[in-house]
Amino acid sequence: MKFLYLSLLLLVCNACRAQQSPVFNDDPMQHLPLGTELSQYRLREPTGLTNPSPRVEPLNWWTDMVDPRLEILIYDRNVAENDAVTVDYPGVVVEYVRRLANPNYLFVGLYISPGTSPGSFQLRLASRGRATKNIPYELQAHPRKEWTGRSSLSPADLIYLIMPDRFANGDPGNDRVAGSTDTLVNRQKFLFRHGGDLQGIIDKLDYLADLGVTALWLNPVLENDQPYQSYHGYAVTDHYRIDPRLGTNALYRELVDQAHARGIKVVMDVIFNHVGDQHYQIQDLPSADWIHQWPEYTQTTYRATTLLDPNASEYDRRLMTDGWFDKHMPDLNQHQAHLASYLIQNSIWWTLFSGQDAFRIDTYAYPDADFMAEWNRRLREEIPHLGIFGETWVHGPAVQAWFTGGQAINQRLDSHLPGVTDFQLYYAINEAMSKDPGWTDGVLRIYYTLAQDYLYEHPGQNVTFLDNHDLARLYTVYDGDLVKVKSSLALLLTLRGIPMIYYGTELAFAGAGGAFGEGGRVDFPGGFPGDARNLFTAADRNATEQEVFTFVKNLANYRKQSAALTTGQLTQFLPRDGVYVFFRHAGDETVMVVFNGNATERKLTDLSPYTQMLSGFQRGEDLTRGSEATNLAGLTLAGKETRVLRLLRK
Amino acid sequence: MKFLYLSLLLLVCNACRAQQSPVFNDDPMQHLPLGTELSQYRLREPTGLTNPSPRVEPLNWWTDMVDPRLEILIYDRNVAENDAVTVDYPGVVVEYVRRLANPNYLFVGLYISPGTSPGSFQLRLASRGRATKNIPYELQAHPRKEWTGRSSLSPADLIYLIMPDRFANGDPGNDRVAGSTDTLVNRQKFLFRHGGDLQGIIDKLDYLADLGVTALWLNPVLENDQPYQSYHGYAVTDHYRIDPRLGTNALYRELVDQAHARGIKVVMDVIFNHVGDQHYQIQDLPSADWIHQWPEYTQTTYRATTLLDPNASEYDRRLMTDGWFDKHMPDLNQHQAHLASYLIQNSIWWTLFSGQDAFRIDTYAYPDADFMAEWNRRLREEIPHLGIFGETWVHGPAVQAWFTGGQAINQRLDSHLPGVTDFQLYYAINEAMSKDPGWTDGVLRIYYTLAQDYLYEHPGQNVTFLDNHDLARLYTVYDGDLVKVKSSLALLLTLRGIPMIYYGTELAFAGAGGAFGEGGRVDFPGGFPGDARNLFTAADRNATEQEVFTFVKNLANYRKQSAALTTGQLTQFLPRDGVYVFFRHAGDETVMVVFNGNATERKLTDLSPYTQMLSGFQRGEDLTRGSEATNLAGLTLAGKETRVLRLLRK
Repeated sequence: MKFLYLSLLLLVCNACRAQQSPVFNDDPMQHLPLGTELSQYRLREPTGLTNPSPRVEPLNWWTDMVDPRLEILIYDRNVAENDAVTVDYPGVVVEYVRRLANPNYLFVGLYISPGTSPGSFQLRLASRGRATKNIPYELQAHPRKEWTGRSSLSPADLIYLIMPDRFANGDPGNDRVAGSTDTLVNRQKFLFRHGGDLQGIIDKLDYLADLGVTALWLNPVLENDQPYQSYHGYAVTDHYRIDPRLGTNALYRELVDQAHARGIKVVMDVIFNHVGDQHYQIQDLPSADWIHQWPEYTQTTYRATTLLDPNASEYDRRLMTDGWFDKHMPDLNQHQAHLASYLIQNSIWWTLFSGQDAFRIDTYAYPDADFMAEWNRRLREEIPHLGIFGETWVHGPAVQAWFTGGQAINQRLDSHLPGVTDFQLYYAINEAMSKDPGWTDGVLRIYYTLAQDYLYEHPGQNVTFLDNHDLARLYTVYDGDLVKVKSSLALLLTLRGIPMIYYGTELAFAGAGGAFGEGGRVDFPGGFPGDARNLFTAADRNATEQEVFTFVKNLANYRKQSAALTTGQLTQFLPRDGVYVFFRHAGDETVMVVFNGNATERKLTDLSPYTQMLSGFQRGEDLTRGSEATNLAGLTLAGKETRVLRLLRK
Repeated sequence: MKFLYLSLLLLVCNACRAQQSPVFNDDPMQHLPLGTELSQYRLREPTGLTNPSPRVEPLNWWTDMVDPRLEILIYDRNVAENDAVTVDYPGVVVEYVRRLANPNYLFVGLYISPGTSPGSFQLRLASRGRATKNIPYELQAHPRKEWTGRSSLSPADLIYLIMPDRFANGDPGNDRVAGSTDTLVNRQKFLFRHGGDLQGIIDKLDYLADLGVTALWLNPVLENDQPYQSYHGYAVTDHYRIDPRLGTNALYRELVDQAHARGIKVVMDVIFNHVGDQHYQIQDLPSADWIHQWPEYTQTTYRATTLLDPNASEYDRRLMTDGWFDKHMPDLNQHQAHLASYLIQNSIWWTLFSGQDAFRIDTYAYPDADFMAEWNRRLREEIPHLGIFGETWVHGPAVQAWFTGGQAINQRLDSHLPGVTDFQLYYAINEAMSKDPGWTDGVLRIYYTLAQDYLYEHPGQNVTFLDNHDLARLYTVYDGDLVKVKSSLALLLTLRGIPMIYYGTELAFAGAGGAFGEGGRVDFPGGFPGDARNLFTAADRNATEQEVFTFVKNLANYRKQSAALTTGQLTQFLPRDGVYVFFRHAGDETVMVVFNGNATERKLTDLSPYTQMLSGFQRGEDLTRGSEATNLAGLTLAGKETRVLRLLRK
């Protein structure tokens, strides 16, 4: 602990100096040695802390679950010395009591019969016939009736990704929370907390609804009580607590309710591969096999290919799955049955507690694949309308598709995963904007990527995007070229999939850099007290910002009510002279999208290839150029421009 | 026809002039207008020629086939005027007689009961009760007993690809054949015939056996009686006749026998997508739907993606399958039931007639996919040991794999195709030799390509290669860099799959250019009368030629008896510092292959990743450097070098 305090002192000094520095100073990513000593990997054994903070998890449960079994984790000093646990409540039976190496943990298996009444009871712990402790536990009524009419995350949605620390600070009172390891709020530093929170997001829900957003994906909101880089949320230290810098569990539920009131779903970002090294289960390991242990710090290879490769070596497979993603984030062993149960129940708990709609699974390829399959199966079994998509930052359509569920590919196991983050389409659109058309290059890469949709059971369930919290921002990637920015946004909002917009991309936010795109995690101007400009309102936007905003808003709101662009079929045509034409169509509504993959202007002279789609249509309402009606024949496109046309009968 | 004669005259003059020219003159590809007029696409209807050359096809059939049905095509002037066909032979029944628009064709369906005796009978044709003609037909004894012990084309084989016109001229007497449309032999011109033939190949079988070859793939040997570019064989004009410039049907059977005597299988190259425009069935179409008709000449898009793309337009799909590959080669409509039957029976006929072992299917993606699936199924049903691989010149592992059969990918139909020409591995090896290692680039592309082997039911059935008749030659691609030439050959002969060597690649033949790699179709020095050098024997080879030859021969002959390199498992490791290590292993035999994907030297210092494979092994016999025993630790590799080590216990 000495090292930690020393480091904290060091940090304070650095932070003081940084106050006067610009956002990008000599050390833009602030790679300080802070926390290094504590988080260096070392072989860990259960320590059996003498002063643990007692816990009972899940915090509560519900009656009439599909699976009547529940495993309660009790964490308390020497709790494992108890040899009996009893419950006196109609319908509830203790099925088993299990221990691991660490005497501070006890796992109690309950069976809750269908029809059991909601209510409270005591878990009565006893040792050698003597009662030692009673632990109150609550069974709440199942919220199933609130689910009526709920729809799953689908191509009809438009997701908006927010890094909560960077969007809006609705409650400056929780910027610094006493007792937190990291209370250093500093908006000048990319790797420090900036003060954004859930209240800030709630306050801006109208802005999002107006933009056309129908789903909100928040980067992880659970407690990250880490000494360094705690703002991003991917190093969870408490699975049952919203980070107090962001708000409370109750406020999270409030956010879900407020979002739902505006027709907006909420997607929780969860991580099963690792936790923060300050997690109580790491500081006081339940068992040595709770995490993947290595003789010395061993990183994952980040090569998801080893999972699907029939030629892969066991060595590479193990490194991928069991190697650590980062020194500060111990790699969980999901083959540990109690841990697996803990993680699955935690996800169910948050969904039933908050009413949230979906999960985005971080580093999806890194946990044990069979655990992830079981997680997907269990969650959808309990919550049939639940949306799920996994992050698959991989290369190649067949590498990515391997992770999705269903019968499209006969894999070692059915993952039951409905969709993935579609990095392949992201790469393809990037290439289409930056390269000239070749046999498979440039715009042809979009064509080839979508041609391989046969690999997916439901290609429309893939979440498509142009940037995210780990990537350089769209506006920066295209160096401020608004034609390319708008063109790629038009493709995003009209191609198959569930499109996702990274917060601020609708306002041409710039930013890049850092190992994980930290440089793009900029504060939303107007979201923070004292901001010079407020981009949530049109008045403070410059021309570029307003142009992109209007473009996104128009298309997003058209899309929102369009069967063609959401549930409609996609029909794509082989690019001709580098001009890529595709249609989305449903019933009488047909939307024609034309993307000029060349650097120079093209005119659409020959419509004959599109006869099948154009029967009766000769003109279109241009959704990308202010709704003017346009003749299809002779349609002119600037280099890299995309035009979206709602086809008109006359 | 006037135009043809004019063009022929033109050609003669050109040919005269070319005699004095070097191989590469001002018009290296000789794109002359010859034949253009005749072969220009025009809408074709059955003509009902008044002077057809009568035919009965298949030329004969066999008893005790798995499928007892046979459809005989009779081509003769107004043969369709016959309204009855009878057969008087025990076990043989006429099931049907069918006509198409053209009166010169009659299709007679026979049912040949199991147990029918071999022998001859008459097809008795009659019109309105009056006998008009008797056609003799023969049922031969099934050659099934000769098949005992036959093995299928498998990874145990090494295929050698020969363009028969360019390998060896064993019979100068058939260089010019009276009555052929093209009798212009000119070794100075790449697109003219050079005189190579089947006798030439027979004469060199010992050379091939010595090299380690176990299978011979000949570019098509059926008659190509075309006025121009008739040498390559892909414009068949007679499905039942070996091109007389190459030999006779009997000589082809002799070649198969002679090859078998040396443990060499024979692979027939067949084309179902198109035929030469001089084919009698094109000159006198059986029906308008025998070929795919277009208002004007319409080329295929060459985009196999349309077949698998669930988003593809009908327009693009039809263009791919029904568009013509080339103006001189009308596109067959395999949905025409009589044509489908004709093509399937033709393949069965050649196999039973000659005893050949396998088929290579040209332009596999272009015929109707359901016809190809049925062809594969029928052929393997009749000849269970038959080897089949399809040419899939496509981009992307999942695009290529879609064409293969089995359950690995749930496609619209099971193609029953065992293997494909592995263009993806070809691209990958090329990239590994020419680019530095990147995250997915350079040597990593080999790793990624093989990681996606999960897409194939039997990845080992893919035919791997470094060049072929359509591609620039290996030695030219690598600009004479022998390290790269040998390195890629070492990968070819040790990775999974059925390796294929293009004739002369074992002797560092150079050549490139032309729309279809025609510039690589060079004559084998020593194969033609008057050649200054004879590279079939060591005496005439220069140092480079001998070095590559020895390299290939040593590896090929080791491979031939090696379970590890043929049936053994492949275990690949993620490249580390650009050094790619894989193993082939079976029983006690383990072969370690190390490829340095960097441009500069590397030393293998850390063997720890390979512990699983290396237990007990510390040294290896280097099969790439003259069999010296080498320590594994500290193994040094030049930039882009591959070393192949048979591991030794001590």
